[in-house]
Amino acid sequence: MKKRASVTQKQIADRAGVSQTVVSLALSNSYDVTLSEETRQRVLEVADELGYVPQAAAKALVRGRSANLGLVLIRPHYQVFRDPFIPNIITGMSGVVRAHGFRLLVEHIDSLDQINTIANLLKGGEVAGIVLLTSYGLENIVDPLVEDGYPIVMLEASRKAYYGVGLDHITGVKFAAKHLVTLGHRRIACITFGPFPNDHIQRRLNAFCEPLLEAQIDRNDIWVREGNYDPDSGYEAMQSLLQVRPLPTAVFGMNDMMALGAMRAIHEAGLRIPEDIAVIGYDDMRFAPFTHPTLTTVCAPEVEQGQAAGEMLIRLISGERIAERQYALVPQLIIRNSCGGQVLHLNT
Amino acid sequence: MKKRASVTQKQIADRAGVSQTVVSLALSNSYDVTLSEETRQRVLEVADELGYVPQAAAKALVRGRSANLGLVLIRPHYQVFRDPFIPNIITGMSGVVRAHGFRLLVEHIDSLDQINTIANLLKGGEVAGIVLLTSYGLENIVDPLVEDGYPIVMLEASRKAYYGVGLDHITGVKFAAKHLVTLGHRRIACITFGPFPNDHIQRRLNAFCEPLLEAQIDRNDIWVREGNYDPDSGYEAMQSLLQVRPLPTAVFGMNDMMALGAMRAIHEAGLRIPEDIAVIGYDDMRFAPFTHPTLTTVCAPEVEQGQAAGEMLIRLISGERIAERQYALVPQLIIRNSCGGQVLHLNT
Repeated sequence: MKKRASVTQKQIADRAGVSQTVVSLALSNSYDVTLSEETRQRVLEVADELGYVPQAAAKALVRGRSANLGLVLIRPHYQVFRDPFIPNIITGMSGVVRAHGFRLLVEHIDSLDQINTIANLLKGGEVAGIVLLTSYGLENIVDPLVEDGYPIVMLEASRKAYYGVGLDHITGVKFAAKHLVTLGHRRIACITFGPFPNDHIQRRLNAFCEPLLEAQIDRNDIWVREGNYDPDSGYEAMQSLLQVRPLPTAVFGMNDMMALGAMRAIHEAGLRIPEDIAVIGYDDMRFAPFTHPTLTTVCAPEVEQGQAAGEMLIRLISGERIAERQYALVPQLIIRNSCGGQVLHLNT
Repeated sequence: MKKRASVTQKQIADRAGVSQTVVSLALSNSYDVTLSEETRQRVLEVADELGYVPQAAAKALVRGRSANLGLVLIRPHYQVFRDPFIPNIITGMSGVVRAHGFRLLVEHIDSLDQINTIANLLKGGEVAGIVLLTSYGLENIVDPLVEDGYPIVMLEASRKAYYGVGLDHITGVKFAAKHLVTLGHRRIACITFGPFPNDHIQRRLNAFCEPLLEAQIDRNDIWVREGNYDPDSGYEAMQSLLQVRPLPTAVFGMNDMMALGAMRAIHEAGLRIPEDIAVIGYDDMRFAPFTHPTLTTVCAPEVEQGQAAGEMLIRLISGERIAERQYALVPQLIIRNSCGGQVLHLNT
């Protein structure tokens, strides 16, 4: 392959008659800066004339860090990228990463014998830092890396010492439970995630039950079934719940996909939503405002989470001091028609 | 940060008493090989003892290539990753990429002033090769790279000379059109992609109209509206189509998202699906088997496309001769209930 001589940003700055800062901003395709389109274009043209090529790998070795930021996803699920949560995180992270001239490396780990990947990416200099989902059960792997000062931001932080931007799902599921209680439901089912055990999910389930028990609903009038994220599993879980007598009057799907599957099973049983059984979901996926009836759900700001995690990671890499190591974005109840009640948002 | 001395795979092989090939297979987390779990574990343990760290950046410079494969997405749409097509491609590509010990670098380009990124990734040695979506209108950028021998595989190849694994959407949309004709529809609407012009989409629209015109349907009885991939846009397009008198008896959404939005608009108008208006979608998204009624659609094997594109790219990088430079996977009609007709798949 043809090789070109390496051209520096200084050479570009001199030729274009602008500062090196302007050059680096223009070349980083930064959004959030106020470069005139004219200046940006001129810098890019000069960079082209001179045949400028960012030698990322070389820079990585020289600076002892990489131009890549890693998004490491640990999920026992080969279809991890079809879970809309991940594309939302990537959407939010990708913009920030590019705006700062980094690139996004996406790594999926679906079995524990690949767990060394986390250390290898960082120690091998393949990435300057990592946004990690999830740290649960991996503290023995993550702790030494954090102690060595490698920049890592968690999407689900399992220790106070970790940096993390989370979603407050505990509050989110309580919104769903309180909404059902407010509407007078006393026999309530929940389709949760399973079958692999996960404290995080268990805490979410407990949080959902809390407002129900506070409202004096009998434990025996709360039914729990396990799904696996996919609508098919919500469909099957609901078919099992339709055997319960008397029928539950409301069902909570811990994601919209499973809620959608539950809706299908209810329709096929010839029952009405919400008159016979109310359905509430979680996530506010793209399709939620368009189901029949439209799906009442809880909106978790996932794109914003990806954005905030990327920003925190870049601040860590830049050596900034970060006072607030962890914070969580709070979800929002979106009332549509699947539980009755007025429509707050038709399109989200 | 602590630094460790670099350990070679040969040292690991000697210590573990296995061949270097076995070591490299075990360390690449390869799926499609028949390493005993015991051997894999032993190699990983020894690698840990010795503190093995793949120096990807260093290797990249030495070998003149990177351990990363790029997926470069050119879409004038900031929510590119929320278009389920992309997660499906990533799903298919990610498995193959990891199985061969590479990592996946995902780069989104949403404006033409960032177009140099393609050349920079390859010439800067940031990636060993690229899977590119799309080459349309970028031939002047792509041709020199292909001539220089950089490994590039297209998901939508605009030249015979390019390597590519595509989806045969021309055949796919014809399946949709023929299905509507077979069911006796004579007044048919299509919600296509817009507003930015795109030959590819125009060809798809023409292909949809072809079977209608062959069936002697009057051009004036074919209505076209533009959407933007999102359900909201399908909802708005359908609201406009509901003003047509007499009403079209069938509508084709060029993706399931827009078809879903159209279904919502039809429901809100108090009309029945399929009795008053039949709806057919495209993509067979996760939610399609669960809408009310279930959505008849065309299934494009997107995950398989990502897989095949990744495999072709790795063969190119390995210097293999590839006889068939381009081929396209053929979609499949999935008949559910939104157009009437029998159910072939309830769950897909």
